Amino acid sequence: MKLATLNNGTRDGSLIVVNRNLQWAALVPHIATTLQGVLDEWDSKAPRLEETYRSLNKGEIKGFSLPPARLAAPFPRAYQWLDGSAYLSHVERVRKARGAEMPQSFWTDPLMYQGGSDYFLGPRESIRVMDEAFGVDFEAEVVVITDDVPLGITPAHASSHIKLLTLVNDISLRHLIPAELAKGFGFVQGKPASALAPVVVTPDELGEAWDGAKVHLPLRTYWNGKLFGEPEAGEDMQFDFPQLISHAAKTRSLSAGTLIGSGTVSNVDWRRGYSCIAECRVMEIIARGSAATPFMSYGDRVRIEMEDRHGRSIFGAIEQEVSR
Amino acid sequence: MKLATLNNGTRDGSLIVVNRNLQWAALVPHIATTLQGVLDEWDSKAPRLEETYRSLNKGEIKGFSLPPARLAAPFPRAYQWLDGSAYLSHVERVRKARGAEMPQSFWTDPLMYQGGSDYFLGPRESIRVMDEAFGVDFEAEVVVITDDVPLGITPAHASSHIKLLTLVNDISLRHLIPAELAKGFGFVQGKPASALAPVVVTPDELGEAWDGAKVHLPLRTYWNGKLFGEPEAGEDMQFDFPQLISHAAKTRSLSAGTLIGSGTVSNVDWRRGYSCIAECRVMEIIARGSAATPFMSYGDRVRIEMEDRHGRSIFGAIEQEVSR
Repeated sequence: MKLATLNNGTRDGSLIVVNRNLQWAALVPHIATTLQGVLDEWDSKAPRLEETYRSLNKGEIKGFSLPPARLAAPFPRAYQWLDGSAYLSHVERVRKARGAEMPQSFWTDPLMYQGGSDYFLGPRESIRVMDEAFGVDFEAEVVVITDDVPLGITPAHASSHIKLLTLVNDISLRHLIPAELAKGFGFVQGKPASALAPVVVTPDELGEAWDGAKVHLPLRTYWNGKLFGEPEAGEDMQFDFPQLISHAAKTRSLSAGTLIGSGTVSNVDWRRGYSCIAECRVMEIIARGSAATPFMSYGDRVRIEMEDRHGRSIFGAIEQEVSR
Repeated sequence: MKLATLNNGTRDGSLIVVNRNLQWAALVPHIATTLQGVLDEWDSKAPRLEETYRSLNKGEIKGFSLPPARLAAPFPRAYQWLDGSAYLSHVERVRKARGAEMPQSFWTDPLMYQGGSDYFLGPRESIRVMDEAFGVDFEAEVVVITDDVPLGITPAHASSHIKLLTLVNDISLRHLIPAELAKGFGFVQGKPASALAPVVVTPDELGEAWDGAKVHLPLRTYWNGKLFGEPEAGEDMQFDFPQLISHAAKTRSLSAGTLIGSGTVSNVDWRRGYSCIAECRVMEIIARGSAATPFMSYGDRVRIEMEDRHGRSIFGAIEQEVSR
């Protein structure tokens, strides 16, 4: 099943069911009006939405043509966004960029931060930045969305709480981050609002690419129309999603509609390219002594997308431009 | 005006208007059913709620007796909780406890972290902890709640966005925090769900104790019935609320219903006592070489309350017990 949110001028938008090939959509006010409302009562709502989804795919119900420009983030706002950093090649490279070593404990203790979730940018919404000199960077990631997760859940029991998946552009202001992280309290200014992909999908939509813990597909990032990276999301992920959920729930329960991010998808094999500029710059420094690739400028565009093994877009594309 | 949320078995509860002396309440479904709904449309909803509040205070409408045991947190869940740490005597002492110096920049650059807001404990809800050995501590703070705050707002313009105030118990697991903060990504496991006071109030309820930037009243914390601290919230607050809001909004707008905390209220003059155990322990170490006061045990109770200059409770009391 694929779900999205239509921008209707309100804060939460209108929930829509979207067909598999992302061409048709149907409003479902008789079932739920918002995606949060679905997560709040997943067991009763999801089967009814699945029914609409099947009918839409078969052409049994007449939907309307999906208007990509009118899509809000699937969650225009959410109660929780916890972002892991499970690809250690990313962690190692980005830390190297700010002159920090990666401690040995990072191999066994997941990195995770509490992100801002009061507003998620829509898939085509501009990245508004007051100053280019902040060092604007994209970070392409996979995200899972949970129902209610009990306190102290083990990784073995966490997978069944993953109800939906999508992609995120976890926008980072690189030049603000070193001073902010040095304070120890995580990101407030260094990470403005993130953008979500057009649709969220249930795990079954991924077929064999989903093993209950990781997504085994490449995540492609394009910068100004040029392929910048296509690392395999299922490789080099040191902590899988059930482990990240278990880490987050060690001392508290997680409420329905919690988004948990993989962290920037990154492979040890740098030839597959990068999901953020910072990694590319570090590899340039290692190879040539200095970084040649600048961060994003006003007018720059980023596109983030994941296709199945047949080349069909799963979540639709995040396509954003940096604006003043 | 004073507002609260009745636990009605749903995730968001039912909004109620509470009279000034916290004895009577009225449901207002014709105006709004949730506190978030009020913040979403403050300008149109607040005047109508104020009218109900006036009538309730005058006895013109018949409310029901406020049932303290049935109150949820005013926001049972919220889209954003950003907690500052504006009292530097707290910061200095707590850092000393984990062997860290306080950098000079902390006098000019506010400390703030993004906290979990997917669930706030009600004012009488137990602090459920899986292991006493986590080092359970309370932190008594003042919180402001904003409407929509534009990106890049200056402190001079931020005060008018403060629509409501309340108190929070920002529960901390002291023994998990040093390793977590060393990673630089802030708190995930070290800060489980916080508890909010029974009611939120508009700034005018504070009278002269509110100067548009700070609350000039003592904040009292009792541990197992004994007064543990009564620091003045208006003293030694290095960054006032408009400055904290401006800091948070440097690179992003803040959505209506954002909670911003003062950090643990603390005075340089230690004779007024403490709003958390960690500070008390550090002062013991300085005075005697070792900490005599333990952290909280199962069955321990904490009470946090602020009274006006006539001894009347403003927000009602947070009263919690630590449970397994």
